[in-house]
Amino acid sequence: MSQSLCHHTATDLAGLIRAGEVSAREVMRAHLERIDRLNPQVNALVSLDPERALDAAAAADERWASGEPVGPLHGLPIAHKDTHDTAGIRTTRGSPLLADNVPARDELVVERLKAAGTIVMGKTNVPEFAAGSHTFNPVFGTTANPYAPNRSAGGSSGGAAAALACRMQPLADGSDMGGSLRNPASFCNVVGLRPAPGRVPTWPDAAAWSTLSVQGPMARTVADVALMLSAIAGPDDRSPISITEPGSVFRGSLEADLSGLRVAFSLDLGGDLVVDPQVRAVLEPAARVLAGIGGRVKEAAPDLTGADEVFRTLRAWQFELALGELRDAHPDQIKPSLRDNIDAGRALTGAAVGRAERLHTDLYHRIREFFTQHDVLALPVSQVPPFDIELEFPTEIGGVAMTSYLDWMRSAYWISATGCPAISVPAGFTPDGRPVGLQLVAPHRGERRLLEIAHAFEQATQHGRTLPGLEFSAAP
Amino acid sequence: MSQSLCHHTATDLAGLIRAGEVSAREVMRAHLERIDRLNPQVNALVSLDPERALDAAAAADERWASGEPVGPLHGLPIAHKDTHDTAGIRTTRGSPLLADNVPARDELVVERLKAAGTIVMGKTNVPEFAAGSHTFNPVFGTTANPYAPNRSAGGSSGGAAAALACRMQPLADGSDMGGSLRNPASFCNVVGLRPAPGRVPTWPDAAAWSTLSVQGPMARTVADVALMLSAIAGPDDRSPISITEPGSVFRGSLEADLSGLRVAFSLDLGGDLVVDPQVRAVLEPAARVLAGIGGRVKEAAPDLTGADEVFRTLRAWQFELALGELRDAHPDQIKPSLRDNIDAGRALTGAAVGRAERLHTDLYHRIREFFTQHDVLALPVSQVPPFDIELEFPTEIGGVAMTSYLDWMRSAYWISATGCPAISVPAGFTPDGRPVGLQLVAPHRGERRLLEIAHAFEQATQHGRTLPGLEFSAAP
Repeated sequence: MSQSLCHHTATDLAGLIRAGEVSAREVMRAHLERIDRLNPQVNALVSLDPERALDAAAAADERWASGEPVGPLHGLPIAHKDTHDTAGIRTTRGSPLLADNVPARDELVVERLKAAGTIVMGKTNVPEFAAGSHTFNPVFGTTANPYAPNRSAGGSSGGAAAALACRMQPLADGSDMGGSLRNPASFCNVVGLRPAPGRVPTWPDAAAWSTLSVQGPMARTVADVALMLSAIAGPDDRSPISITEPGSVFRGSLEADLSGLRVAFSLDLGGDLVVDPQVRAVLEPAARVLAGIGGRVKEAAPDLTGADEVFRTLRAWQFELALGELRDAHPDQIKPSLRDNIDAGRALTGAAVGRAERLHTDLYHRIREFFTQHDVLALPVSQVPPFDIELEFPTEIGGVAMTSYLDWMRSAYWISATGCPAISVPAGFTPDGRPVGLQLVAPHRGERRLLEIAHAFEQATQHGRTLPGLEFSAAP
Repeated sequence: MSQSLCHHTATDLAGLIRAGEVSAREVMRAHLERIDRLNPQVNALVSLDPERALDAAAAADERWASGEPVGPLHGLPIAHKDTHDTAGIRTTRGSPLLADNVPARDELVVERLKAAGTIVMGKTNVPEFAAGSHTFNPVFGTTANPYAPNRSAGGSSGGAAAALACRMQPLADGSDMGGSLRNPASFCNVVGLRPAPGRVPTWPDAAAWSTLSVQGPMARTVADVALMLSAIAGPDDRSPISITEPGSVFRGSLEADLSGLRVAFSLDLGGDLVVDPQVRAVLEPAARVLAGIGGRVKEAAPDLTGADEVFRTLRAWQFELALGELRDAHPDQIKPSLRDNIDAGRALTGAAVGRAERLHTDLYHRIREFFTQHDVLALPVSQVPPFDIELEFPTEIGGVAMTSYLDWMRSAYWISATGCPAISVPAGFTPDGRPVGLQLVAPHRGERRLLEIAHAFEQATQHGRTLPGLEFSAAP
């Protein structure tokens, strides 16, 4: 019983707890045992506090027993992204400079998850200050891919994705500036949703009005992602840009009539993306799957001219804003690639910022017009399959050199620049068993429809059910 | 009958038209006659096209007669701000560079007003590119204050405010980066609401994600402002930041129980604002009025540290973005103060932009916390009463030198930097008959409550009913 509890979806597990068929303590014990067994192999979870988690589970069971109303995620174990503040739990952001940082309060997404009933076990590992899509840092080391331990788990929500894949937790919170909810989901065969800016209000946030970085849900199924989103979406005055629609719009069945759905399908955005042939090979059949669920699939791609400049410019001043002071005080304790980003922020002029905002606006309208002709865009999440864990980033794709840790992430960060919500959903495996995700992109604030489409794709393919090899090698 | 039609509120006039008691043509003719008579004295309306307006009014009457459903503003005459694109009607933005610019399409706010039933007469005069709060430009000259023709009407929605005061139109659209809906309302004894960013979606917009400049309604009563807001608020995908709540939340009575309303009242923000003694003298009694409508009035002011830097920094790169190319191509045809702003944008660094966004965030949270203790903030709209029409800007206040056209507008633009909605409501007159407005500021997206409070203040004072001297001197 105990081990198999970890294989349930979050939705099922929450149902079992609410029905009294299993206690929060049993669920927690099962997950902690599994973590004990599997986490040393992947290093996904850090700053674990099993005692605290078991105490909280016991308290949750008491609340349930007393008949108090409980939240939709009551009793579900979770570790929070190590860039998210957790009251009383070490929050290092992957930096030695914050190795001993223990926040006094939860950040908003943690507060909402707790209010919905989740129980904190610890934190999920991240790259240093969440920069880059490969999870390694000087505090905790590197997170391995559960499907291929000598490969990257992606990032920055890499610990989260690997923990989900290992069935060490049923849900995970993440954040996404340039792909941090999507790349690790793609690499670890789980689901990650980058919502519209303001959908999941963020607080604290050094640049509260910025729309580039967002927070969002990860899980093993699309339905679980929707369940979690319903708990963390909705307005909060602590975020000035928060969307006023309540999270409840994401409740309810994801079954939907998709007949006639206009699907734009593109494996390389009309040649603008350099994509590894192995990724192409895995994703090509997705067009037929999308047709099978009712889609009228067309080869088509939006014109994303300017997306690169928009993303890199806005990211640069935001990194400078967030980390400039630390960089000056401790230049040797910030990784060089990050120092370069901060310095790029300093080198910007007001005219360059203005130009980026103009391009940002033009890009928004171009994709808005694209979506008058299409209901959803399908493209690769990542331009490469999970890469060598020893690399800082893939240095080439199909013979084309990648010169920075951003170069290979364009398929994800160009979409960030559009402001559109996007989801990564499992789409299959390379011949050697590495997961590849399909990215589905919806129009402005179209998360609800996006979830319905991703759910149908998932139901038709079931790739998410394929367990990591780790699962077998380490089984008792 | 004809002349007196112009004295009705928009709400009443729309009711009369809908009830068939008066036709859109009669209403239009009355306004055009009045414009003929009064506009030459104030120069508020430009690019008038009476023939087009009468034709459209006739068409509106036919639609009504045929039983077609008509909008809430059916048959109301309007001239649009000359910075707002109007299909087929010259839109100069007060610049000789655009003297012959005739847009092919309406911008969104114009489109929404037309859909609600308004009929275009022409445009309202603005400062060159809406920069500064005094309405003069090389294309159309200067707009005079209807209450004191040798004084400024304010700006940038100065033509709009003067036209409302003269009863030449019942409603007006405006925009507000640093006070452009509030200062002219204050100077002309009418009502102007700066809504929350995204409340009235703007399109086209060179920086669609920016929250500094907003569009909003002006009218002679608070109820009319609410009526107009209900027609122009609500989401539209052409603005990525638009608030999802529908405009209908602003329909319905503004009568509300305000007993116990926590009013923070401050004439100088704790000494941070230099305020003309004549403005103080007019606004001092407002505290008693606010107490009379149920308020618990306390002398209190938020800490707006950083607001000056936030506003000037964000404004600088936005002006550069919007006007940098024109400035380079035609340096001699851009007013020097505006050239200076554009150059300030170019001189900015990425670090300065980041710092401003951080201060912007800090400021937001400080005022958010302030509003946990207070329901509304009352302060002056303008630091000076309507000033000499020959000046570019007031050069001193109570002996303190003002060195730029922004210096005297802090009472308005500091509030812009907070992101909070704010309204200017008539509050009385200087001994020589110049209008002075009271600024009421509400928490994040609190326009509904703000309108209720402003309505109660208006009902208690009735300052808006005092007609401009012009009205009498020019009566037939």
